[in-house]
Amino acid sequence: MPRTTTLGQYIVSRLEEVGLKHVFGIPGDYVLGFYDMLIDSSLDVIGTCTELGAGFAADAYARVNGLGAACVTYCVGGFNILNAVGGAYAEKSPMIVLTGSPGMDERQHSSLLHHQVRDFHTQLEVFRQVTVAAEALEDPHRAPDQIDECLDLCLRQKRPVYLEIPRDQVNAKVRAPEPLQLNRRKSDRGALNEAVAEAAAILKGAKKAVILAGVEIHRFSLQEPLLELVEKTGLPVAATLLGKSVISERHPQYLGVYEGAMGHDKVRRTVESADAVIILGAFMTDINLGIYTANLDEGRTVNAHSERVSIKRHHFDEIVLRDFIKGLTKAVPKRRRVKIDRPAERPFKVRPKAALKVRRFFDRMDEYLEEGNIVICDIGDSLFGGSDLTIHKRTEFLSPAYYTSMGFAVPAAIGAQIKNRKLRPIVFVGDGAFQMTGQELSTIARNGLNPIVFVLNNKGYTTERFIAEGPYNDINDWAYHLWPNIVRNGWGCEVRTEGELEDALVQAREYRTSFSIINVHLEKYDTSKALERLGKRLSKRAKR
Amino acid sequence: MPRTTTLGQYIVSRLEEVGLKHVFGIPGDYVLGFYDMLIDSSLDVIGTCTELGAGFAADAYARVNGLGAACVTYCVGGFNILNAVGGAYAEKSPMIVLTGSPGMDERQHSSLLHHQVRDFHTQLEVFRQVTVAAEALEDPHRAPDQIDECLDLCLRQKRPVYLEIPRDQVNAKVRAPEPLQLNRRKSDRGALNEAVAEAAAILKGAKKAVILAGVEIHRFSLQEPLLELVEKTGLPVAATLLGKSVISERHPQYLGVYEGAMGHDKVRRTVESADAVIILGAFMTDINLGIYTANLDEGRTVNAHSERVSIKRHHFDEIVLRDFIKGLTKAVPKRRRVKIDRPAERPFKVRPKAALKVRRFFDRMDEYLEEGNIVICDIGDSLFGGSDLTIHKRTEFLSPAYYTSMGFAVPAAIGAQIKNRKLRPIVFVGDGAFQMTGQELSTIARNGLNPIVFVLNNKGYTTERFIAEGPYNDINDWAYHLWPNIVRNGWGCEVRTEGELEDALVQAREYRTSFSIINVHLEKYDTSKALERLGKRLSKRAKR
Repeated sequence: MPRTTTLGQYIVSRLEEVGLKHVFGIPGDYVLGFYDMLIDSSLDVIGTCTELGAGFAADAYARVNGLGAACVTYCVGGFNILNAVGGAYAEKSPMIVLTGSPGMDERQHSSLLHHQVRDFHTQLEVFRQVTVAAEALEDPHRAPDQIDECLDLCLRQKRPVYLEIPRDQVNAKVRAPEPLQLNRRKSDRGALNEAVAEAAAILKGAKKAVILAGVEIHRFSLQEPLLELVEKTGLPVAATLLGKSVISERHPQYLGVYEGAMGHDKVRRTVESADAVIILGAFMTDINLGIYTANLDEGRTVNAHSERVSIKRHHFDEIVLRDFIKGLTKAVPKRRRVKIDRPAERPFKVRPKAALKVRRFFDRMDEYLEEGNIVICDIGDSLFGGSDLTIHKRTEFLSPAYYTSMGFAVPAAIGAQIKNRKLRPIVFVGDGAFQMTGQELSTIARNGLNPIVFVLNNKGYTTERFIAEGPYNDINDWAYHLWPNIVRNGWGCEVRTEGELEDALVQAREYRTSFSIINVHLEKYDTSKALERLGKRLSKRAKR
Repeated sequence: MPRTTTLGQYIVSRLEEVGLKHVFGIPGDYVLGFYDMLIDSSLDVIGTCTELGAGFAADAYARVNGLGAACVTYCVGGFNILNAVGGAYAEKSPMIVLTGSPGMDERQHSSLLHHQVRDFHTQLEVFRQVTVAAEALEDPHRAPDQIDECLDLCLRQKRPVYLEIPRDQVNAKVRAPEPLQLNRRKSDRGALNEAVAEAAAILKGAKKAVILAGVEIHRFSLQEPLLELVEKTGLPVAATLLGKSVISERHPQYLGVYEGAMGHDKVRRTVESADAVIILGAFMTDINLGIYTANLDEGRTVNAHSERVSIKRHHFDEIVLRDFIKGLTKAVPKRRRVKIDRPAERPFKVRPKAALKVRRFFDRMDEYLEEGNIVICDIGDSLFGGSDLTIHKRTEFLSPAYYTSMGFAVPAAIGAQIKNRKLRPIVFVGDGAFQMTGQELSTIARNGLNPIVFVLNNKGYTTERFIAEGPYNDINDWAYHLWPNIVRNGWGCEVRTEGELEDALVQAREYRTSFSIINVHLEKYDTSKALERLGKRLSKRAKR
């Protein structure tokens, strides 16, 4: 092994070492030297139509793979990816943003280089706001440590980091990499034992306890430990909206998604009437908890997540979530499975001439899903309707349920399927969101991916109509199903009735060459029940 | 007049007072209360497909109108507009960014509200990097001063500002507005007289002087004073690329665009062999000056712009550009017009069967332009080819020539034409750039605008091919001309030969109902001369 390498090569070998196979992005002259190194590596570079699309794809890739990366040019590229990075920060998706910048040398000769805004650190300062670490690699002596620290923080905190490579530093000599050392957080034994004992005692004394699992179960790969706890305690388990599918929704102890008044009444009652709620890896966010319609009494909760463990009103700081779940599993006696009543499944009966309604559409989709699908929901009714679907396996539901940025779903399908080509995405996206990032169907077609995309076309920003109605909520009615003509690939159709939907479903499933896009015509004010409730709540806030 | 008003109403009345008629944007729940006030005002709210589109439209509107505004929601909206705001900062386009944010009240109850990234000031800190003033209106007592100061700075420095309105402050009581006081910068009389006298003496002693005009002539509405100076001195006048069209390109003293080795040789020689160059309102940026192929000896220049006046190697800080131009005009004697040799115009002769070439295409377009057109160029060969066109009137050429962000041109057509519906945009956009923001054709169609959009379809990022060629420069070959089918409006066709182009030009001119889109097929490596030269220069830098 050589004792030195180049800065660019150092980064490339680290990306390979931490298990990346793909990098998403758009090139530009400040980053072309590094792009050439990516092309020569084992990594595949996936070009997207927009940097925002690259960002959402990298985020989804991170959610499925455990880490994602995007590579873009300076400012004109970096700024366009910012929203996706903000979402990854908010929802703890570990993603590396790589970017070029003007060379150190050329900065001496002028202060006005193209793509530049205020000064040479403008983009760095912007990304400091939305990452856990942002470094400009301006000194080859420091660069290896900067890179390694960023990777460590990204993997430990499950949040984005940023590395900026001045273009004349790509070939700068740096020390060759030693195997990457990752700092693993360790539990304080005393605190862990105390918290586990206290939580076990609470469970022992409880008559109607319940487990509520959040998205960190997925981010920190805790699905197995969770499952063991669930099965040993025999307790019912609910998920938050962001955490939907961290446990298989066919598990006999699975209750459903808990989201306060927005969710199913039965789930709400079971969780809120419990005498002990063990919350594991959940963000206590507004939408995640039904815009604070959730009613969880702190005095009855054990709330453990990656940053701390809280029991009732006291807190333990130095406990690793995995240790807590495993410790608790060990400390509790094996109990019989609590029986959960489920409504008998009634097969969906098609009424061929009936105009499509949102609720009927999602009822039908619940039957349509099969193993090998991953459900990806954009926001609005795509998410609210989607939240009622039964996800067969765990972690096969992706959505920006907390950050709620429009335009996530179509590019996310790229990231999800490119990582695992056998996983066929079922994408639900509103017409407004599709108009933002739908052009990434082009990237989908180019890479031989085959998601089935349902555009819930209600002619505007329907979620907003329930908060405040105005002409600003109307948008153009595109012929979404004609996108295959634009990108010269894929299959599309439009549906207005339940019968037309049936035909489309059959054809889309059979067509496997490229994407299918189904323009689902819906009434402007037709909604899922969850959206109707949410809109009313948000309206009160927005109008204050 | 009432002695108090609401904070939202205060902003609306200031926007009306400074001459805005339109605001671009996309609503979201944190900004809906303010949106309702905009709807009730004299301002038209123009909804776009993406926030980035709204940003570019507002920037173009500002370039035509003297001020523009965009209104978006918190983080998921704000971050998406950032790149356009960065461009407006870089190229001095005065634009107001308005945004909602979580209410002050709801912030007390939770620290995790939807759309939130790190904390409640994350978006504010981001925008501080790309604006001359960024304020969160969290205190109704301070808000009127914050608003007025932002407007003043925006108009004075011709750069973006940012106002963030917590949603529960929209209806907060604030003092009613007095007429807006704008701080006008004043020249130091002594410095002005000294600088003018010195510059006049230089002109008097010069045998071959020349004027070089930049974009600030437009931004600060100095076209008339410039014209007077040009006509009184009789000197030849060139423009920078960013400043193209600050003087009519049919003016008998107009030389052409000066951009070092990238531009026409005759312009370069005239400027660089001059014994005095009077530079007025130009940014000395890399692309603007042909990536430093420009060869301007400081010892022979008078360089006056909005921030300072430099004569040879000494500087005067307190001089207003307008005062300097007017003072100089007064101080110099009237001289005869220098005669500029122009090559005889040779009418374009169509070779109907010939495959279209970039150079022939732009030669033909030069004849096609007519009064009433505004030329809008995206970057790459759209800009380099476009730079050779003859602009009939002044300020009818828009392009991000310094910041060079892809995707500017299609949304910019909205901003330019909505301000002046008689101005029909001629848009040149590359295929890569179209794939980024082309969906704004939908906004164009919805608002009854009718630009003629030429997609220079060379199947990839051709500018980059000349810097470094790799698979990352290839993009999908869309059927761009089928966009009318998607948005159910407009007219399109594709052309491969000079004859087909002729037919398309006639039809596009006659079709005035909505946009025309012409898919201009070009060879992958076919370029304008300027691009070929630029690519070679950039290549040396990128590869270092």
